[in-house]
Amino acid sequence: MNPDNLVQTTGEWLRATGPESDVVVSTRIRLARNHAAYPFTNRASPHQKAEIEAIVREKVAQVDSDRPLHFINISKLGQLDRQFLVERQLISRELANAEGPRAVVVDDREAVSIMVNEEDHLRLQVMRSGLALDEAWQDIDSVDDRIEQVFDYAFSDEFGYLTACPTNVGTGMRASVMLHLPALVLTKQIEKVFRALQKINLVVRGLYGEGSRASGDFYQISNQVTLGKSESAALTEIREVNRQIIEYERQARTLIIKETRQAIQDRVARALGTLQSATMMTSEETMELLSSVRLGVNVGLVTGLPITLVNELFLHTQPAHLQKLMGTQLDGEERNAARARYLRTRLKEAGPNPN
Amino acid sequence: MNPDNLVQTTGEWLRATGPESDVVVSTRIRLARNHAAYPFTNRASPHQKAEIEAIVREKVAQVDSDRPLHFINISKLGQLDRQFLVERQLISRELANAEGPRAVVVDDREAVSIMVNEEDHLRLQVMRSGLALDEAWQDIDSVDDRIEQVFDYAFSDEFGYLTACPTNVGTGMRASVMLHLPALVLTKQIEKVFRALQKINLVVRGLYGEGSRASGDFYQISNQVTLGKSESAALTEIREVNRQIIEYERQARTLIIKETRQAIQDRVARALGTLQSATMMTSEETMELLSSVRLGVNVGLVTGLPITLVNELFLHTQPAHLQKLMGTQLDGEERNAARARYLRTRLKEAGPNPN
Repeated sequence: MNPDNLVQTTGEWLRATGPESDVVVSTRIRLARNHAAYPFTNRASPHQKAEIEAIVREKVAQVDSDRPLHFINISKLGQLDRQFLVERQLISRELANAEGPRAVVVDDREAVSIMVNEEDHLRLQVMRSGLALDEAWQDIDSVDDRIEQVFDYAFSDEFGYLTACPTNVGTGMRASVMLHLPALVLTKQIEKVFRALQKINLVVRGLYGEGSRASGDFYQISNQVTLGKSESAALTEIREVNRQIIEYERQARTLIIKETRQAIQDRVARALGTLQSATMMTSEETMELLSSVRLGVNVGLVTGLPITLVNELFLHTQPAHLQKLMGTQLDGEERNAARARYLRTRLKEAGPNPN
Repeated sequence: MNPDNLVQTTGEWLRATGPESDVVVSTRIRLARNHAAYPFTNRASPHQKAEIEAIVREKVAQVDSDRPLHFINISKLGQLDRQFLVERQLISRELANAEGPRAVVVDDREAVSIMVNEEDHLRLQVMRSGLALDEAWQDIDSVDDRIEQVFDYAFSDEFGYLTACPTNVGTGMRASVMLHLPALVLTKQIEKVFRALQKINLVVRGLYGEGSRASGDFYQISNQVTLGKSESAALTEIREVNRQIIEYERQARTLIIKETRQAIQDRVARALGTLQSATMMTSEETMELLSSVRLGVNVGLVTGLPITLVNELFLHTQPAHLQKLMGTQLDGEERNAARARYLRTRLKEAGPNPN
């Protein structure tokens, strides 16, 4: 499979079709798995990593799945294609920048992806639109079962799944929910929410993984603990917490509409006006403005603009996506001009109206 | 005459029909004059001020003029109407806020205005569109001659015209040119220009007189010296200096278009986009954005928007104008909403296009 096939689309998880999609963008669960007969990736020789890759290509990518799986050899991709897969959340930045044999297996809805020779031999991932922890869990559990039949998992009866980093030992599971929390940011309640999450060992990160800033008011909330707690207990905990945060965000949206309607209306109208008129636009500013527009759509201050399109614009204006869409490599200034042009064109087609 | 008659229009001087009107908004000359038989305004009793006012109403306002003159009794106007006349530059803020008998005489093109009982008994003013010092001088000299026949000027053979403040003694003349200098501001050359002007005793101020900030990149340049220098010498000096500044501004415009075209285009397009979409807008921000748009029109980055309309929007979005246009008193927040709505409507009618 060639990444070019994905350029015009978004993954299923970005379609805003799932539950609570006014606040929740997507749910993601990943499992860390390793082969019992090989040293962990950071200790494995290039030859051993190539063997792992071969097992994945010949066996894992061939397991009976709901939809066909495609094997992508990362080391054969150029820098732009690797960054493109990072932006789509199909691979990590670490895997993109690593050396030696490494790969990713994806299905054509981009619901399932399996990173090969990242920190662990396998990183299974399932993504779903909206808050869908149960469905994501059923999906990944089933994928995991089928892979287990062709890939000899490193497993200890005492500890559970063995992983390169001790923080993943046990279930090897990390469940993440990506939320759009513009009203909690605007009302300055977001820090309070985060402090509460830290106390119960949940991790909050920006859109693109560890250490990244929360561009566009997107936040990922994930479990931290993988040892001594079952998958279902961890999922229950993260589900409850997310239900609470969704409720807080909705209350904050109601509050700002009630108490500062004019200011919010102005903010949303200006964001839309700027996106429709600027001729130079950075990725960072795009995220900020689209965040205001997304809030506007969700609180009824903008009509004629589907959330699916807003989500797609977040993705398509990322640097690698933009260059793939334009069909050429662009430097920073050229990207800013191309991004502004792309946004103007797409928004003109949609013809949104501030209310 | 009722100020309401002026609401839908702009004075002739704002029509951008005069010479060099890409850079020069208007030319203004004023003469300070006093009656020989009365103490200066700050020493005059209310009764004496009323007598001055009566002479003006009965004689000065009746002199044979090109166009009919109208007498407006300031002390009978409400606060909003007084502020309205300040915004139109027909009276000073000082006269608006003063107490006691005071008035202004204007013609219906707003080319001539005569303030009564300001710092001096009479402040004659002539305004012209563009750089038109000679024409303005001919106008005011002729008005001055006709008034002199009905109003006994305080004049000393040794010093010239006697005025309340020694800085005006002599010719009593101040000539001001209002320039729009956005490119000199953008290229940070404006400070250098001002330092040069100070050395030759010229005064630089913002749009609304002494001490006011240079909102919208508008600057007034005036002569300081009224003693020991003839009117024609002062006018020659200020004409030469303005020709230079106009040249600098045009060079700066050429430079930014050549070297930072994309950035300027983006700035202009965003300004226009924000003016067309915001739902709340302060007067200060309006001036800034309209300044970018005015620059855009003058360098060919915006089409379909006459400078006359841009000039009119500068004036009509001032607080008192806005309230007169809406026909009601508005508080700050209401004004910001009304201003944004007015701008959206007027710009929609015009349908400008960023190039």
